[in-house]
Amino acid sequence: MPIDFAADPSCYRHWRLDIDGAIATLTLNVDPGGGLEPGYELKKNSYDLGVYIELNDAVQRLRFSYPQVRAVILTSALDRMFCAGANIGMLAQAEHAFKVNFCKFCNETLGAIEDASDSGQVYIAALNGTAAGGGYELALACEKILLVDDGSSTVALPEVPLLGVLPGTGGLTRLTDKRGVRRDLADVFATTAEGVRGQRACDWRLVDEIARPTEFRAAARRLAEQVVAGAGPRPTTGSTGLAGVAMTPVSCYAGADSLRYPHVLAEFDRRAGTASLTVSGPAAAPSSMSELHDAGAAAWSLAAARELDDAITRLRFGEPELGTWLLKTTGDPAAVLATDELLAGADDWLAREITGLWKRTLRRFEATSRSLIALIEPDSCFAGTLLELALAADRQYMLDGVFTDKPRDQKPAVLVIGAMNTGPLPAASGDTRLAVRFGRGSTLEAVLAASGKELTAAAAAELGLVTATPDDLDWEDEIRLVVSERAGFSPDALSGMEASLRFAGPESTTTKIFGRLSAWQNWIFLRPNASGPKGALRRYGTGQRADFDRKRV
Amino acid sequence: MPIDFAADPSCYRHWRLDIDGAIATLTLNVDPGGGLEPGYELKKNSYDLGVYIELNDAVQRLRFSYPQVRAVILTSALDRMFCAGANIGMLAQAEHAFKVNFCKFCNETLGAIEDASDSGQVYIAALNGTAAGGGYELALACEKILLVDDGSSTVALPEVPLLGVLPGTGGLTRLTDKRGVRRDLADVFATTAEGVRGQRACDWRLVDEIARPTEFRAAARRLAEQVVAGAGPRPTTGSTGLAGVAMTPVSCYAGADSLRYPHVLAEFDRRAGTASLTVSGPAAAPSSMSELHDAGAAAWSLAAARELDDAITRLRFGEPELGTWLLKTTGDPAAVLATDELLAGADDWLAREITGLWKRTLRRFEATSRSLIALIEPDSCFAGTLLELALAADRQYMLDGVFTDKPRDQKPAVLVIGAMNTGPLPAASGDTRLAVRFGRGSTLEAVLAASGKELTAAAAAELGLVTATPDDLDWEDEIRLVVSERAGFSPDALSGMEASLRFAGPESTTTKIFGRLSAWQNWIFLRPNASGPKGALRRYGTGQRADFDRKRV
Repeated sequence: MPIDFAADPSCYRHWRLDIDGAIATLTLNVDPGGGLEPGYELKKNSYDLGVYIELNDAVQRLRFSYPQVRAVILTSALDRMFCAGANIGMLAQAEHAFKVNFCKFCNETLGAIEDASDSGQVYIAALNGTAAGGGYELALACEKILLVDDGSSTVALPEVPLLGVLPGTGGLTRLTDKRGVRRDLADVFATTAEGVRGQRACDWRLVDEIARPTEFRAAARRLAEQVVAGAGPRPTTGSTGLAGVAMTPVSCYAGADSLRYPHVLAEFDRRAGTASLTVSGPAAAPSSMSELHDAGAAAWSLAAARELDDAITRLRFGEPELGTWLLKTTGDPAAVLATDELLAGADDWLAREITGLWKRTLRRFEATSRSLIALIEPDSCFAGTLLELALAADRQYMLDGVFTDKPRDQKPAVLVIGAMNTGPLPAASGDTRLAVRFGRGSTLEAVLAASGKELTAAAAAELGLVTATPDDLDWEDEIRLVVSERAGFSPDALSGMEASLRFAGPESTTTKIFGRLSAWQNWIFLRPNASGPKGALRRYGTGQRADFDRKRV
Repeated sequence: MPIDFAADPSCYRHWRLDIDGAIATLTLNVDPGGGLEPGYELKKNSYDLGVYIELNDAVQRLRFSYPQVRAVILTSALDRMFCAGANIGMLAQAEHAFKVNFCKFCNETLGAIEDASDSGQVYIAALNGTAAGGGYELALACEKILLVDDGSSTVALPEVPLLGVLPGTGGLTRLTDKRGVRRDLADVFATTAEGVRGQRACDWRLVDEIARPTEFRAAARRLAEQVVAGAGPRPTTGSTGLAGVAMTPVSCYAGADSLRYPHVLAEFDRRAGTASLTVSGPAAAPSSMSELHDAGAAAWSLAAARELDDAITRLRFGEPELGTWLLKTTGDPAAVLATDELLAGADDWLAREITGLWKRTLRRFEATSRSLIALIEPDSCFAGTLLELALAADRQYMLDGVFTDKPRDQKPAVLVIGAMNTGPLPAASGDTRLAVRFGRGSTLEAVLAASGKELTAAAAAELGLVTATPDDLDWEDEIRLVVSERAGFSPDALSGMEASLRFAGPESTTTKIFGRLSAWQNWIFLRPNASGPKGALRRYGTGQRADFDRKRV
């Protein structure tokens, strides 16, 4: 059964969301019987994908619906247990591809938590009990970590000693690169199954503060109040104020071979192994931020991003054999550019949140293990924000001229560089996609000098914005060839190659997590030492020790 | 049979080394019947480990024995074929662990080529024929690439389309990050089995120049002469001049459970799964650079580095079940520090080359998939260059006091920070190991302020230079516990964890290759799509197509 990525606080099974002025509290209280699949029990606040789908919803909802919130306390409803991490029974029974996609979705959610902290909603982990494995990695994504000092509660990364796998959601990278934990202490910590508690956890920089049980709630509250006091006002324009946007459900009609949203259409060609993703541009730009606020979740810029995000996630989990995605756009480039101008120019919280959502959606797109080919055709709309879709792709094909067998009033394809291409939507490395593509020399300067111009196929090719510009005579054959060639290659080699080329240039925590950790985890998950019948993941909880092949590779 | 990593130009089977003043030429002429193992034929200048062992020797020998050489031309003796890359028959029959170690050794050799270019011997790839796969990756490690424009010779990375694996020696990373190839063109290039030739190879930045066959040799010579003309004089001190050092063979007695070198002793405990590596410090420092030049390959600083390098490589390939290496030193810290001062202070080519060799050896050590534990005991010599060994390790244990059951005249262990710890021996990221350990804040400043002091266990612990400081009562139990704990963990999870923590902080091409590419390749090599009976590696050359599981992960 396809996984539904929609959630709503009124229906959460595992979380409770409380809003108290500028402070929100997200309380984890996993329903042990509420797993997405039968076969495992979610004890001790351990999680499966369903728990993270709700968390993902809550993080996004807080940003859009509760802009007055400046500090978010993450805590647990259980006694002496914050979160035991990913459920091992679930991992042991899951297929390799599901494990990889599950980790990726969790990592993206943690990225959204960190991103919120950057843009005005700071997350605080209030660990009222043990945070183990993915539970501690959730805390590591927060800006502050408070641990109860009750003589028993620990933070821990027991994956290596207990499960024979790596912490799968960035724990090792965040320990050293984000928190500055010394690498020998990180080694001791990540091989100590029972974890570290109390003052030592502070001394090693694993947590920021500890508090006795009687003082714990007050300490968490104090940290949140400090964040609120230190936060400047959230910018807003005119009369729109801090009224949140109601995040109505994304509307999706899922057919056997398609996903249909108001602004996004995904169509599958199972024989060719492709999904066509067509994003429609806005009918017109909002005339003002007030109009955008009034439109709320119905505004094109918010709705299209949410739909695209939903489509990517569904295709990742549900359609692994559609190995090539063909990206198309339709609409009026001028309307996208005008929308971009409004968003980029506004000193307004909603404009920032919408831009941030596009940023994360484009990164989700790039972190997808599918070949991404942009098809730039007449009447397309690859301008500004939607041009980023093409730049995120592995290749860009642009029709030179129009299709002769189609109506005469086609507008030949153009690309337009706008405000959103030069800063607000950086790729995972932190650089713009144009800088990733061209480096930082004179070529990039020439490209930037063409901002605002309608670039035809010839101009786009000259600047290096597209891979090839076949004309009508060659178009169909060339695209068919690319698709069939791609379908003939090893999917594994493609995943590795694409990850290498997409994360070219400088590195960040994000590129390390998606480029490097993912690769190690892919390998480790596949090895008999983890997933074989005598592997650690399978034997966990049976009382039997794993039986390892001791050879180091 | 254990692999011998020694080589000498007079016995090369696959290369010819010619020296002509400031220009050397390394000509590849692989003996098809000269493979290290039976079962494959090294056609078309394809290579196995034996070819790279000779290349590794040549690169090192050029640096030490031929300091007058400023430009090295890499070319081939075959017609229309520079090098076809790693031999596929060899890869298809090799075990997973061998493939991984083979790629690693090749990558380290390519790193030595790039490092030589940085320090005064610039490599030029003169591709007189096709350079495919690892053949082109060898060219990518050079600073200039010249390709013959004969209408047929190409550069190519056919691994993805033909073999279902990645280019295993840094090709994808160097394309984008070193040469600035656009990432969509890199995608087209790396999926085009037949490669790219002529002007297009230039336009895409895959090569720097092309030359017609009749002009090819002259063009290569001109490039080399330009390098020589542009190079400043090689620094040398006093009367020592540019007389090279004869690289006499490293002396090693390989027993069943040990490797004995003059300055390095490796002892195996197969039951515990450990190798103890003990490096002896110098008896005394050379009084001058002249003395060091006179001692040549017998000088401690050169000999010890070569021996350690040899031991690491032998243990990697030959002893995969010795999962933990215990690092010890003996000797007089003052003698190491005085040697370091001489090397760091001299404006002398030999001083630079010796320092560079230590740099690469320490990196080889860190890129080894074994747990590295430094044991800092009485009479040890962890100062300066040898302190880097401890800092490269995953953990550092330092005895507080002396062993009560050993002679009374033990000198309690000390650590001493010297000139070699603050710049000349950077880790792969380019940062010093102290900066990797402490970040760049006040903690690092406090540590650097202790330079030159003999730091006892208490002082070293206070500064954070060591992980733990057990006393004589606890020492044996604690070390035994660490070793047995390590032996109980999944070797795969340890490899992934250690690679993550060792490459903390900023990234470089090197960390990308050893941290990321290695991980992807580990995974891909293991997947049935590459190595299964119907996988691409096995079916290559059989006329049958590989049979892929099309699911994208």
